[in-house]
Amino acid sequence: MTEKNLLAAFKQTAFRGVGHGPRTIHALKESLSDLDDSLESDMYGKGAIIEDFQKKITQVLGKEAAVFFPSGTMAQQIALRIWCDRKGIKRVAYHPLCHLEIHEEDGLKELHQIEPILLADKNSLIRLEDVVNIGEDIACLLLELPQREIGGQLPNYEELVAISAYCREKGIKLHLDGARLFEILPYYQKTAEEICQLFDSVYVSFYKGIGGIAGAILAGDDSFLKESVVWKRRHGGDLISLYPYIVSSDHYFEQRLPNMGQYYDNAKELAGSFNQCHGVETRPVEPVSNMFHVHISSPKELVEPLLISIYESTGIGLTGNLRENDSGGCYFELSVGDQYDHIPKEGLQKVFLQLDEGLKAASSSR
Amino acid sequence: MTEKNLLAAFKQTAFRGVGHGPRTIHALKESLSDLDDSLESDMYGKGAIIEDFQKKITQVLGKEAAVFFPSGTMAQQIALRIWCDRKGIKRVAYHPLCHLEIHEEDGLKELHQIEPILLADKNSLIRLEDVVNIGEDIACLLLELPQREIGGQLPNYEELVAISAYCREKGIKLHLDGARLFEILPYYQKTAEEICQLFDSVYVSFYKGIGGIAGAILAGDDSFLKESVVWKRRHGGDLISLYPYIVSSDHYFEQRLPNMGQYYDNAKELAGSFNQCHGVETRPVEPVSNMFHVHISSPKELVEPLLISIYESTGIGLTGNLRENDSGGCYFELSVGDQYDHIPKEGLQKVFLQLDEGLKAASSSR
Repeated sequence: MTEKNLLAAFKQTAFRGVGHGPRTIHALKESLSDLDDSLESDMYGKGAIIEDFQKKITQVLGKEAAVFFPSGTMAQQIALRIWCDRKGIKRVAYHPLCHLEIHEEDGLKELHQIEPILLADKNSLIRLEDVVNIGEDIACLLLELPQREIGGQLPNYEELVAISAYCREKGIKLHLDGARLFEILPYYQKTAEEICQLFDSVYVSFYKGIGGIAGAILAGDDSFLKESVVWKRRHGGDLISLYPYIVSSDHYFEQRLPNMGQYYDNAKELAGSFNQCHGVETRPVEPVSNMFHVHISSPKELVEPLLISIYESTGIGLTGNLRENDSGGCYFELSVGDQYDHIPKEGLQKVFLQLDEGLKAASSSR
Repeated sequence: MTEKNLLAAFKQTAFRGVGHGPRTIHALKESLSDLDDSLESDMYGKGAIIEDFQKKITQVLGKEAAVFFPSGTMAQQIALRIWCDRKGIKRVAYHPLCHLEIHEEDGLKELHQIEPILLADKNSLIRLEDVVNIGEDIACLLLELPQREIGGQLPNYEELVAISAYCREKGIKLHLDGARLFEILPYYQKTAEEICQLFDSVYVSFYKGIGGIAGAILAGDDSFLKESVVWKRRHGGDLISLYPYIVSSDHYFEQRLPNMGQYYDNAKELAGSFNQCHGVETRPVEPVSNMFHVHISSPKELVEPLLISIYESTGIGLTGNLRENDSGGCYFELSVGDQYDHIPKEGLQKVFLQLDEGLKAASSSR
């Protein structure tokens, strides 16, 4: 039973517990449908279509300026590079499961010769204590809120404030990997501006909870963003036209930002159902955003056929991608979006019933 | 009279002698209109929508493999980086007005620490003699066909063959900046494959003569492209979805590739009309693609108001961007596309009459 089969079975389900539905070109068509054909393209970062959106997000984040990038990978490497250049120290600190460390083919090291110090155990959040004990001078600390690879965990707000104050005192720039910033506002009960004021630079994504096509915003002070535009060109990201990403970012930002509280509530409900199943524990146990990880104590090769049979009998899909965890079991990631409210509630009850029974049977057969 | 006024006047013209019309979101809407809403997005370089297009262009270029990139800036830096890494020499050679040298904020040097040797005088083409006389060992020679910044000039085919043979003999990789490759095929009377077989790696663009939204293809052998995908991720170019650029590249590739001969013929006709005007000479005198530069011996501050008055009285625009040249005059670039055939011929005659008379008056008033 290969992962490909799980993905195929997942794609054939009528209802999915996660996200905003399949990624098809419908999303782009819908974003364009209300716009006039004569709307002018941006041209290498200029033009109303990009400048207006940058201005809007600048205000949402409460920063001086913001620049639209094709990707967060590009935006964040550039942010760290600028802070390193300013301090004359090519050293930063971040979590061992930071996106830059595990998903970017070492671009930060290969293109920018920046050395990262990995803070905290990979299964834990970065705490104030970790920052205080770094021991070496660094240009920048990157915090990812929520910490995606450990289920989207969050420090409490007071600790964030303390880390921010410490960094300012020590002359360490604080950068926010806010790929899922909008998704955590309901938990913190803060505005984006209130969170962002703790940070010197901020990256936000428009295709996670917002559900756009692709694209990112980097925000901070004016001179920082001016410098980032030079690096954006160097990276090959200053495209003649970024508008396909901008119009979809804007469209779904307007549509889904008000739903973040609902996604969060649904995630807590969904996690509660998982946690009642045999040998299942979500991380965090109670989600702090729309996302969480589902850890199952049974091994992947037993869980995969079970999930496939559940998908086939209920028409409801949970994930297309099951990964092994460190304790001999397996896990998957869930991000709640528009799809959750479309699932028939009786169907979902059947899913958890079958999952619970199947996992009981699996564990007793071992 | 500022350049901004010239651009504003140009944008108000009903007919334009250049390009495929204003860059508006219409182009993207048109590209999507025939596609089914359920068509799946690419996902980080995988999926039929990107793989099929890569396969198609691989065959057009007669190479082993091809990868779609968001920009040529990214694709070409990466190509040179790979060739440099393979040879263990961080030195390449290209023209002084190469895109990498003048339009990319020194990305090649800043991100890849690659040192370029500038070949030939900036107003001339790179000749075989220049290559033979480099004197230092280089990993790669980049040739841009046509050489855009000098009006889109081309060496003859025999000289290309000789440069290619020399590079192979000396173990120098030959890279083609083919941003306008499709535009030069009518002049050479060769297929893209015939041109590309002279080169080890090839970049082509989809928003020059093809008129897509943005995007580029890098082609070459399998192992080269596999390596390029790693660098694409490092640069932040491995977007979750590149399909907005891919569908428009494909749409306009199909639509406009057959028109390249017509664009070329029109460019020759248009250049002929310019060359009959007082104090005007095109570069090249006879175009070898759809593009050329128009050099005017009168200074920019006299030509700008003349062009604005011509645009206003005829409704026909030629350029929105006039630049000073080295000999006290000014010049602009023209790329012929779909728009040319829409211009009323009598209107165009009036344009050249007024231009000729205006420039005569301007030169006698000095």
